[in-house]
Amino acid sequence: MAYRIGVIGGGQLARMMVPPAIALGLDIRVLAETEGSPAALAATAVGDYHDAATVLDFARGLDAVTFDHEHVPQGVLAALVEAGVAVHPSPAALAVAQDKIVMRERLAELGLPLPEWAVVHDSVELGAFLAEHGGRAVVKTPRGGYDGKGVRVVRAADGADDWFAAVAEHGGDGALLVEELVEFRRELAQLVARRPSGETVAWPVVETVQRDGVCAEVIAPAPSSTGRVAAMADDIARTVAERLDVTGVLAVELFETTDDRLLVNELAMRPHNTGHWSIDGAVTSQFEQHLRAVLDLPLGDASPTAAWSVMVNVLGGPASGSFADRLPAVLADQPGVKVHDYGKEPRPGRKVGHVTGTGAELDDVVARTRAAAAHLDD
Amino acid sequence: MAYRIGVIGGGQLARMMVPPAIALGLDIRVLAETEGSPAALAATAVGDYHDAATVLDFARGLDAVTFDHEHVPQGVLAALVEAGVAVHPSPAALAVAQDKIVMRERLAELGLPLPEWAVVHDSVELGAFLAEHGGRAVVKTPRGGYDGKGVRVVRAADGADDWFAAVAEHGGDGALLVEELVEFRRELAQLVARRPSGETVAWPVVETVQRDGVCAEVIAPAPSSTGRVAAMADDIARTVAERLDVTGVLAVELFETTDDRLLVNELAMRPHNTGHWSIDGAVTSQFEQHLRAVLDLPLGDASPTAAWSVMVNVLGGPASGSFADRLPAVLADQPGVKVHDYGKEPRPGRKVGHVTGTGAELDDVVARTRAAAAHLDD
Repeated sequence: MAYRIGVIGGGQLARMMVPPAIALGLDIRVLAETEGSPAALAATAVGDYHDAATVLDFARGLDAVTFDHEHVPQGVLAALVEAGVAVHPSPAALAVAQDKIVMRERLAELGLPLPEWAVVHDSVELGAFLAEHGGRAVVKTPRGGYDGKGVRVVRAADGADDWFAAVAEHGGDGALLVEELVEFRRELAQLVARRPSGETVAWPVVETVQRDGVCAEVIAPAPSSTGRVAAMADDIARTVAERLDVTGVLAVELFETTDDRLLVNELAMRPHNTGHWSIDGAVTSQFEQHLRAVLDLPLGDASPTAAWSVMVNVLGGPASGSFADRLPAVLADQPGVKVHDYGKEPRPGRKVGHVTGTGAELDDVVARTRAAAAHLDD
Repeated sequence: MAYRIGVIGGGQLARMMVPPAIALGLDIRVLAETEGSPAALAATAVGDYHDAATVLDFARGLDAVTFDHEHVPQGVLAALVEAGVAVHPSPAALAVAQDKIVMRERLAELGLPLPEWAVVHDSVELGAFLAEHGGRAVVKTPRGGYDGKGVRVVRAADGADDWFAAVAEHGGDGALLVEELVEFRRELAQLVARRPSGETVAWPVVETVQRDGVCAEVIAPAPSSTGRVAAMADDIARTVAERLDVTGVLAVELFETTDDRLLVNELAMRPHNTGHWSIDGAVTSQFEQHLRAVLDLPLGDASPTAAWSVMVNVLGGPASGSFADRLPAVLADQPGVKVHDYGKEPRPGRKVGHVTGTGAELDDVVARTRAAAAHLDD
């Protein structure tokens, strides 16, 4: 009898879980939000993940349930656990990823290196934080942010008044997270996978280049990541995974500061954009590893298969026509670059695909991979 | 608008076309023989490929139709072409793969190196061939053979009397193919992909180990394949592809003789067991390349990504329990070997999956890959 895995959410992460599920002979089923989702091929149900009855119905007979995103309400997760469904990551772990204030609190308890941060309830408290941090800071809404949404650089005490009003209206206590604007040399990401039984396997730390708060490029492994940086990143991610009891893939976004420290920026408890390179550049991709981890199957070798892998996101997609229209040109121009189409309608800023190049010389790989992306994204 | 590709036949070859179709954003549809086929995830229709109406209905609106096997009758293929469907490989090319006597005739016309062969109609003609070839020969039924079926070594003139009767009964002219029993050092396979517009890309020549007429192991590239052997194999396969106007993947099985010649054994015009290593060991797998080729999209880089790739078939599957039951043991024991489950019921001798290892040292890769297969096949 094949293992039966259910994925809540039909986005590109669920889509990219399908190929390794086919290889391993897993019966993968997706609860998609809409017809025609990126994961439509495996979508056995279409429904609202906020509705416990819908999700419980979907979960019947599955060996484990996991996620394309972190937005499933705790009440729905609790209903799944109550019904005896194996939910990975667990509701308790997901709670930390779902709320940025909770995340900061828990990471601080673990003694992990963080940007300076505070919880602020009004412009007076925000003003005080600004005064102590050079007059500028990053304000984040605790919930619902991703890809730069819900994140704002402020330089005045009244710079988040609209958000204070909005979060109060949504029934919270009106709190926002404020963090120092870190002077960083570059951003890194460390991904690990962890099974319920405890086995943890890490990929090499990668460098990520963000544009407008969105991941634009990833270089794996991170160039000049000395043994010390790599070891620190690995240690931080393993600590988070173990102490928060994360199951599946955990992504830890890090700042490498100009004074040689690593600070934890964000967490994600699922396959992550900074791990897409692993499909084409590692023995075991993050999508295969996530499926193995949440089913408590032994984890795979996460070693790179090439000296360098470079992933470039396709953001927005072609200005005219479709992704498919550009395939002949990109494939002809870059026969060694792997193209990934998420099956989405092009829209400004939307992640509609990615491309990955691999090779022995970083400059060459970067050039080829960017050239491929340029065909798809104009 | 996504490219729409249809695959006739729902076996493991169609199954393994699904992951690259997802990556490239192709809309892949499979006409399967039965419910619950290996390619069930993409099976949009279940029906009999011998029935022209069924196949025409399936083909409506597709950009190209290709195949999981070579058994679709010429009448059905002709109906597709008549209806304006792009069929790849073409009926004319497939005719050569469908009949081993036609294959020998066409390859001989092309001047390609072949075992000595003859068409024989009775025991007298077979006896004459045996007398000229040391008293032993290989007899093949022209149609319907695969994986050692329809192939028999004979040492007596009456050794194929049952087959003469059988082929006569099926409306043919009672002819069988007879070939010399080649003294070979080893068997090789050369795969190439070719687009309708002519572009042809070859993978490195591989060594294949057959057991009981079935592919058991593949080593890529073939060890000690000197420049001369590799060049000859490449040249033979390109000649076949170009002269027979093959589109998609072409596999040419070759004997490397003890006197340093290459002789063409068999042809297949589709992804082939000897190319499965390319999923995990080449920049572009045979399944991605086949889809690109039959859609007349530019072909990908077929370079290996590791010094050595070794593929071992899982034949028959576990003596007890299912493939899935063995996953924990194989994944724990061999974290670097990639496991491919075809979603079939175990049955003696049946190809139910394969495993592929990659690495820098051939002995190590062979040992790890065989160890993985041993968990699945006992």
